[in-house]
Amino acid sequence: MERITVQTNVLKANQEAALENRRTFEREGLLVMNLMSGPGAGKTSLLEATIRALQGQCEIAVIEGDLQTDLDSERIRALGARAFQINTGTMCHLDGRMIARALQEFPIQGLDLLVIENVGNLICPASYDLGESLRVVLCSVAEGPEKPKKYPVMFYKADVILLNKMDLGLPSGQDQRELEKNVREVNPRAEVFALSCRTGEGLESWITWLQAAVTAQRQLI
Amino acid sequence: MERITVQTNVLKANQEAALENRRTFEREGLLVMNLMSGPGAGKTSLLEATIRALQGQCEIAVIEGDLQTDLDSERIRALGARAFQINTGTMCHLDGRMIARALQEFPIQGLDLLVIENVGNLICPASYDLGESLRVVLCSVAEGPEKPKKYPVMFYKADVILLNKMDLGLPSGQDQRELEKNVREVNPRAEVFALSCRTGEGLESWITWLQAAVTAQRQLI
Repeated sequence: MERITVQTNVLKANQEAALENRRTFEREGLLVMNLMSGPGAGKTSLLEATIRALQGQCEIAVIEGDLQTDLDSERIRALGARAFQINTGTMCHLDGRMIARALQEFPIQGLDLLVIENVGNLICPASYDLGESLRVVLCSVAEGPEKPKKYPVMFYKADVILLNKMDLGLPSGQDQRELEKNVREVNPRAEVFALSCRTGEGLESWITWLQAAVTAQRQLI
Repeated sequence: MERITVQTNVLKANQEAALENRRTFEREGLLVMNLMSGPGAGKTSLLEATIRALQGQCEIAVIEGDLQTDLDSERIRALGARAFQINTGTMCHLDGRMIARALQEFPIQGLDLLVIENVGNLICPASYDLGESLRVVLCSVAEGPEKPKKYPVMFYKADVILLNKMDLGLPSGQDQRELEKNVREVNPRAEVFALSCRTGEGLESWITWLQAAVTAQRQLI
């Protein structure tokens, strides 16, 4: 019983911070993407490919969430984009208050797209609204096709599901069509893109879709 | 401040249950392995390969932890081994009390090895002692070499670290030697085995080591 009460209070406090963040983002006409996946599915590689593709057309910045290290922020900065690192220590997810604190030090004026790369975890981040306009879940084909069924909350709540590492389908012996079928079963509403950040295959459709989403968000102000 | 108090109480209650489990396991002279990894690193494939290799020599059973589905238990039972499925719902880890409850329904007498396959999560399960004698962490070479640095608690607390999917090193472009170096940096004490559950490469050393650990545990009664 105590566990439920504590969890409810934590989520309620988070929801207030998330709402405040969402108002701030909407005032700026800014598309904010909460990017989530398990460890090593390729979130930072996706961001590198996306930043490269949109360079000169779209102002992108990234808030990076990791338990430890600023390795991911360094990769983003190496491309000339701004990045802000949050180290959560032992916390398994980002929450609305962490983002609110980051926004005090990290200006978002003039941006077209803010990406929040969450901590690598296919469970806990799904429960914490950050104020984002877009929930994007990435999963690697090499992880096996049953992941949507085993981690249903994360997949169910996604607006976009990206199936990365298509090029490893054959060498890993995993069935990409079975993965797509399971994704559709858990979440028939999401936009789904199959791609490989390593070979570039399938990236174009994702980039085109994202550009349209950025433009649509701008027109809301 | 509330967050710290709650966390301390939860971990203290867990520790009591874990100690009780440990006494039960020790009375039986039973080796108990807590097997942890991120989603899709190959925990169940490792168990399949291990059960096959030890069939007829070693009595193995498995407690499976998943948010949803009993897909993993079905895979274990298909090999003729006993399996007990715990579905945690939205809980991101197994805890000592869940194992204590499972033991009421799942007899362990006559076993040589009990494996507890934890929920696929490279963060939260590291904080919860289940009463195990052996903490085994699995990571996939395809996830990238920086994982030990980004998830240090999980790797630091491991007795054994298995680097799976060696066969994907080349096709994924990830550097296995860099991964091994990072593993050693975070945890110089752990036994480390590089292997591929898919091709069978490197499995023999792991199996030989595990057989010796089972025998050593038996001699403690």
